[in-house]
Amino acid sequence: MSRLSPVLDRIDQSLDDSLERLFSLLRIRSISTDPEFAADCRKGAEWLVEDLRSIGFDASVRNTPGHPMVVAHHDGPEGSPHVLFYGHYDVQPVDPLELWHDDPFAPALKEVEPGRKVITGRGSADDKGQLMTFVEACRAWKAVHGGLPCRITLLFEGEEESGSPSLKPFLEANAEELKADFALVCDTGMWDRDTPAISTALRGLVGEEVTVHAADRDLHSGEFGGAAANPIRILARALADIHDENGRVTIPGFYDGVEETPSQVLKSWETLGETAESFLGQVGLSIPSGEKGRSVLELVWARPTAEFNGITGGYTGKGFKTVIAAQASAKVSFRLVHKQDPAKIRAAFRKFVEERIPADCSVEFHEHGGSPAIQLSYDSPFLAKAKDALSDEWPKPAVMIAMGGSIPIVGDFQTYLGMESLLVGFGLSDDRIHSPNEKYELSSFHKGQRSWARILDALTQ
Amino acid sequence: MSRLSPVLDRIDQSLDDSLERLFSLLRIRSISTDPEFAADCRKGAEWLVEDLRSIGFDASVRNTPGHPMVVAHHDGPEGSPHVLFYGHYDVQPVDPLELWHDDPFAPALKEVEPGRKVITGRGSADDKGQLMTFVEACRAWKAVHGGLPCRITLLFEGEEESGSPSLKPFLEANAEELKADFALVCDTGMWDRDTPAISTALRGLVGEEVTVHAADRDLHSGEFGGAAANPIRILARALADIHDENGRVTIPGFYDGVEETPSQVLKSWETLGETAESFLGQVGLSIPSGEKGRSVLELVWARPTAEFNGITGGYTGKGFKTVIAAQASAKVSFRLVHKQDPAKIRAAFRKFVEERIPADCSVEFHEHGGSPAIQLSYDSPFLAKAKDALSDEWPKPAVMIAMGGSIPIVGDFQTYLGMESLLVGFGLSDDRIHSPNEKYELSSFHKGQRSWARILDALTQ
Repeated sequence: MSRLSPVLDRIDQSLDDSLERLFSLLRIRSISTDPEFAADCRKGAEWLVEDLRSIGFDASVRNTPGHPMVVAHHDGPEGSPHVLFYGHYDVQPVDPLELWHDDPFAPALKEVEPGRKVITGRGSADDKGQLMTFVEACRAWKAVHGGLPCRITLLFEGEEESGSPSLKPFLEANAEELKADFALVCDTGMWDRDTPAISTALRGLVGEEVTVHAADRDLHSGEFGGAAANPIRILARALADIHDENGRVTIPGFYDGVEETPSQVLKSWETLGETAESFLGQVGLSIPSGEKGRSVLELVWARPTAEFNGITGGYTGKGFKTVIAAQASAKVSFRLVHKQDPAKIRAAFRKFVEERIPADCSVEFHEHGGSPAIQLSYDSPFLAKAKDALSDEWPKPAVMIAMGGSIPIVGDFQTYLGMESLLVGFGLSDDRIHSPNEKYELSSFHKGQRSWARILDALTQ
Repeated sequence: MSRLSPVLDRIDQSLDDSLERLFSLLRIRSISTDPEFAADCRKGAEWLVEDLRSIGFDASVRNTPGHPMVVAHHDGPEGSPHVLFYGHYDVQPVDPLELWHDDPFAPALKEVEPGRKVITGRGSADDKGQLMTFVEACRAWKAVHGGLPCRITLLFEGEEESGSPSLKPFLEANAEELKADFALVCDTGMWDRDTPAISTALRGLVGEEVTVHAADRDLHSGEFGGAAANPIRILARALADIHDENGRVTIPGFYDGVEETPSQVLKSWETLGETAESFLGQVGLSIPSGEKGRSVLELVWARPTAEFNGITGGYTGKGFKTVIAAQASAKVSFRLVHKQDPAKIRAAFRKFVEERIPADCSVEFHEHGGSPAIQLSYDSPFLAKAKDALSDEWPKPAVMIAMGGSIPIVGDFQTYLGMESLLVGFGLSDDRIHSPNEKYELSSFHKGQRSWARILDALTQ
């Protein structure tokens, strides 16, 4: 008999108990962004420490200038890898409360259709339910085998929903303690109800704010129109120049470091059946706006972009004012892939805009963050093992997907701990995270635990 | 002896009395935009009616849904032309009051440098002082000759500073009564202290608000960036396409009806000595942004423009938000010259933008006013006569200038009364109209009266 199957059995038998534990955690109002709930956040951290100690972890509440971290360690067999697991115990605010069908902090199991039950409550999916899948897998393993299959460190954050202000300093200050062979992060989702997913790439981000200054005051367009520089016109021209007619970014050097996605990866994405119509149809669109000749999944997962996130200048109230503004500004972001260098992209963008500013006008830039893309190497052995382990658990084989957005923790692990992350999660797109009536599928919670047991088994053989 | 010189003498002798009358009018707080001063506005109208009756005008306060109009008639000799004179007795608000050196409604004569006196107070230049120059010229003429040189109708408005809501209905309802051979409008300025000016052209205006709609909600730029249409990008592209690299407007048909300004007019503008550096230097700029190869005065006086008066879309607050907006919008105005048709320009602009909207996005337009340009024919005989009359009064010959902005009354006279306007005024650019410490030069008030006497004489010989 394998070492895995009794663990899976144990998980099945303990489901009711594990649910009770999750419910206890979900009852804690650990809303990190609202100072009124600071004591509740600490209660969440303390609850986790107590629970982890009951499994045998050396767990502690670790103070930060904000809400505390939870760090817990458990030894593993000699020579086994050291794994860091990350989750967060803080949750989003619950307003508007009147839209909730049930008390967000009174979790319950609800049968939503025959044979399908969900766990209701704030944090059920994001991220308490998810982080507890891993904790429960450890508990079952320990109960069956008296130990864990590898050395495991747990890091639970209490500020993920409020910008993680304490995270980087904490990682820096505790790098020695937290550094592991690789990280497991459980804050993502499945491809669909039957298909587990591993996120292998995350796009990076460069944020810029650009302000064009023309005259030293607002002008009357009757008096000066046709003679005085109009900063909205200058800005519109500079922004318009950033894309060519094929949707490619024209900033010199922008595509340096961008690699073509391997054809077998593109093919695997094709099998997911996502089309421009299905992907864009959900938001009332149908025509991809990015580089021509690429699928929507490639566009959002594996291609860099330039997006204009905001623009303002002149009179924007009701009615009309014949003004030529003194300035106009835009917020511009670039999503990066592969080896694109945020600093180079930022510099190239600034140069591109500066070249389009008339000599009697000026431009200023403000930096709004920058982080490189994360790209797991497709031939990493632990990626293949995790994929097989997940495929064994779920109706359909696991897929390797990417994420168009950033998950800062992954970049931070790379930067501060020199460690790659494997992103596996069991959320579904209809879990309504950050919204009223958040839920987590009972199957996500149950099979999530089983999935982690399988992954731990696979990664430590 | 001419019939003119005793009138001029009379004006000189009556200067102190005319000043007292102006001061009485200036003491009335006829701020039209603030309902608190409604009774003061009526008082202003009543004061004028009484004063005009003292000259022999058949004058009356004419009620409107807003502040009243003053209409006054005086016969002239058989066969003489009928002239309508327009001015407004309402004034701008006075805040911020603390910036005034003197009570804005306690007018006074101040010697600001040896030999140079100014009349201080709100409305001294805009427009009570200006309208009284004409009233005083009529008074002197009547006193000397027992009658006026032509039939004269006066129209004084009480809502010019608050958008003239009652003007068009009033003109329509009283067209028969108000229609004259031509109008004299005294609400403009001199070229400089020594050089009187006649405004012979006013640019027209087409105002448009354009809103580009993309997705049916705001999107996360990580999730959708590179796939979903970005309305700011679409809008920026459409706006950027409106001008070519030489500053010309590229909208098909835009220049239909635009004429080249006669070379002798361009030459006369050259003699004014205005350069790009002097004109733009006052607002911190130096390089004309309009059509290349034309002087700044030609650009603002005789060339049409497309200006972007406002733009907004996406996140415009502090910091950064990685959003792809559902919509973006801009306020766009066109200044028109000569025979450009506002309706055609509006339609051509809309078509131009519509052609740049992707098939899965949409655009909507809102109209914000439209009026054709006003262009006095350069060879009009009354223009030449007025020019000569003004040149006789002032140190330097009168110049024919144009105005980049619109004066709605001139278009309304054209539209509702089928009547051309001669714009003559004696304001100076440093009169601080609409601002604290408004003043009117005593020389403007005095020589303004003499100028009108000369013009009336010249136009009725």
